[in-house]
Amino acid sequence: MSEKELPGYRGMALEALKKAGVKAEDQIRIVKNGQTFEGILIPRSEYGDDTHVVIKIKSGYNLGIKVTPATRIERIGAGAKLAFYPPPIPEQKPDLPRVAIISTGGTIASRVDYRTGGVRPALSASDLYSVVPELSEIALIDAQILYSIFSENITPKHWSEIAETVAHHIEKGVTGVVIAHGTDTMGYTAAALSFALQDLPVPVILVGSQRSADRPSSDAATNLTGAVTAAARALFAEVVLAMHETVSDKAIVFHRGTRVRKCHTSRRDTFKSVNASPLARIINGRVEMLTEDYGKRDPTRKLVLKPHFDEKVALVKFHPGLDPGIIEWYIDKKYRGIVFEGTGLGHISHYCYSAVRRAIENNMVVAMTSQCIWGRLQMSVYDTGRDLLEMGVIPLEDMLPETALVKLMWVLGQTGDGEDAKGILTTNIAHEISPKTIEV
Amino acid sequence: MSEKELPGYRGMALEALKKAGVKAEDQIRIVKNGQTFEGILIPRSEYGDDTHVVIKIKSGYNLGIKVTPATRIERIGAGAKLAFYPPPIPEQKPDLPRVAIISTGGTIASRVDYRTGGVRPALSASDLYSVVPELSEIALIDAQILYSIFSENITPKHWSEIAETVAHHIEKGVTGVVIAHGTDTMGYTAAALSFALQDLPVPVILVGSQRSADRPSSDAATNLTGAVTAAARALFAEVVLAMHETVSDKAIVFHRGTRVRKCHTSRRDTFKSVNASPLARIINGRVEMLTEDYGKRDPTRKLVLKPHFDEKVALVKFHPGLDPGIIEWYIDKKYRGIVFEGTGLGHISHYCYSAVRRAIENNMVVAMTSQCIWGRLQMSVYDTGRDLLEMGVIPLEDMLPETALVKLMWVLGQTGDGEDAKGILTTNIAHEISPKTIEV
Repeated sequence: MSEKELPGYRGMALEALKKAGVKAEDQIRIVKNGQTFEGILIPRSEYGDDTHVVIKIKSGYNLGIKVTPATRIERIGAGAKLAFYPPPIPEQKPDLPRVAIISTGGTIASRVDYRTGGVRPALSASDLYSVVPELSEIALIDAQILYSIFSENITPKHWSEIAETVAHHIEKGVTGVVIAHGTDTMGYTAAALSFALQDLPVPVILVGSQRSADRPSSDAATNLTGAVTAAARALFAEVVLAMHETVSDKAIVFHRGTRVRKCHTSRRDTFKSVNASPLARIINGRVEMLTEDYGKRDPTRKLVLKPHFDEKVALVKFHPGLDPGIIEWYIDKKYRGIVFEGTGLGHISHYCYSAVRRAIENNMVVAMTSQCIWGRLQMSVYDTGRDLLEMGVIPLEDMLPETALVKLMWVLGQTGDGEDAKGILTTNIAHEISPKTIEV
Repeated sequence: MSEKELPGYRGMALEALKKAGVKAEDQIRIVKNGQTFEGILIPRSEYGDDTHVVIKIKSGYNLGIKVTPATRIERIGAGAKLAFYPPPIPEQKPDLPRVAIISTGGTIASRVDYRTGGVRPALSASDLYSVVPELSEIALIDAQILYSIFSENITPKHWSEIAETVAHHIEKGVTGVVIAHGTDTMGYTAAALSFALQDLPVPVILVGSQRSADRPSSDAATNLTGAVTAAARALFAEVVLAMHETVSDKAIVFHRGTRVRKCHTSRRDTFKSVNASPLARIINGRVEMLTEDYGKRDPTRKLVLKPHFDEKVALVKFHPGLDPGIIEWYIDKKYRGIVFEGTGLGHISHYCYSAVRRAIENNMVVAMTSQCIWGRLQMSVYDTGRDLLEMGVIPLEDMLPETALVKLMWVLGQTGDGEDAKGILTTNIAHEISPKTIEV
């Protein structure tokens, strides 16, 4: 067999497959440590290592088997020509709750491009069932492909459209909504939907994955199953983000949309709730609430849709040597707001003061967060903080910088009045600000 | 007693002191739960709460005592007119190792301004001994006030001067150097010194505190004691940052200068080593190494000083809706480098591509890090990463964005040649890049 017929394989795995005379899409048998595995040999993404062979077993799952010198591989039949793409849609059970899955792209909605070996976003309704057949046991799925894009290309305009699409499904009476999304900017979208979708009657659950579904260690199926289960059954009705709680597959955790941040480039438990507890987790198929203070599911409640965002808001991370000229540039570009990622308790250097004053004189809303990420601002402790407060800089308590950016875009999408904007910005709308507690 | 004579006190504490007829700087006795405490009543910063009374006891330490209705307070003598400012310098023990303490300002080097109640940076050599009398048992201290500034006002020019000052002390033969620094930008300065001070013969230890020395819960004394102990005795000779390892006073931990980040606005264990283990810790006065791979103390080694930084480097955090015009602005301003805080494995949206291309055509060094903070870039997994690599964007592995900014400023301070700069930027100089490991 040539390497062309074994796309994505290399190293030991490639050698073992060549020796066995098998090619991608063949039915093969692997015997290792006395155990026998049978399935269709599937091509690998270039993300793969050089020791695992991946087969799709009868249940529809992919299995990665590490090849050792003692592993036996043999061909047992012709390839099914990957007839599982597209697979038959499982029999629908009409008495199950109806859940909408809106796909925007990203790894969870991607599969390997068999030509290039690269990971590409593309997910049809039937793909969903092929990747996670048990979804048909949990809910009646309405699948919709809204976009097929990497999440670094999601913009505030997409947030508005996603919010409108969610609202449309809710108006049609679904029991819950799941949004498949790339993880890179999923935290920003989760914050955006938290402000855009108010008085939710049912849960809205963003879900992603860190490894695509063709990888042995993929988290796509477990995350999606957890998200659909919660959409169908959970007691809460908030915008949340569902991902692995730890690196194990044991629990899927639901973070509030305004509190969540991607904190690792590759781990499956990359998302963390910051300055807050997660809202809930699902373990052994059961949803456990982790707080008593939450928005409860109530299908009779009327959703309030506020989907507008103003993109003329900048996020400026302060650092030693920052050129205050960029603040002036944003003023000249008629920006309406700036969120600083200041240092510590909420500081930027005095050499930025005159630019900040000019921004405020030009009716820009200037707000402060901390690049520490964890903890709360306290701008009255040091002279610097007091100076900034006096100028009119707005301290955003313990709000995440990314959430603050999204919120200010949203606030300025709701009102043209600066004083109104400041009022909404500092009002807790979707748990983005914690009540003040005594410092210990 | 009027409130003027009890600066900083309020609420219950103020009432109790008024009732007792005492004023700041009086000798007082407090009896609570059968225990008796005596000392000088000291004024409080406005950071204080309204229930604690703070006295300076005989040992020189400050003690905060919570006032309850049953607490008795009485005046036992006239104030010492705060004769402990300035205190007598303890007897020097000439056989102890000589440690230089360079003060740049910040909370650790601050005390309460008795007029305003605010915290102000100012620390003389003798103040050090008054705050931490046991320093005289550990080392012979050469104290130098280099600056008295909040660390948000530290710039790359200060980094150069601090590096030169450290080099000067090392040339004079000190056993170690301690730098007192505000915590807000101490991580950036630690990275800067890690590149500027090479082949160190002795340890260089940045130290800060999250609560000023007049607060009952101050970490100033324990951090400073730990830093001076390590400067005098530790086996390593690297640039490190010393702070609390946990919220308890049990251990002081030493983070490598290129790996450390302030991760909480107010906790005493705010600094964390990212993508790396801390270098060492001190517990019960003993320095424990936490890795075997470290630069060892060798007083005969010749320090190499490379103190130059080029400030024409930008840090741009990508987010949905980022205006690529700011990249163009940096090009027009003749910046020589940009470090992106991209998303996930190292991405920015395609709508930034043309600006990035123009930057590279203009001989700017364009490098990528991740806003995830934890984890490593992998830019060959998705199309976006591959596109950026093809344009010439340099992936900076698992380097912290802040360290990458500082390193690129330093690299461009060393060389005018773009290819040289890329070579130095991607070469591991001070443990800022971890060796690659297999993804799990």
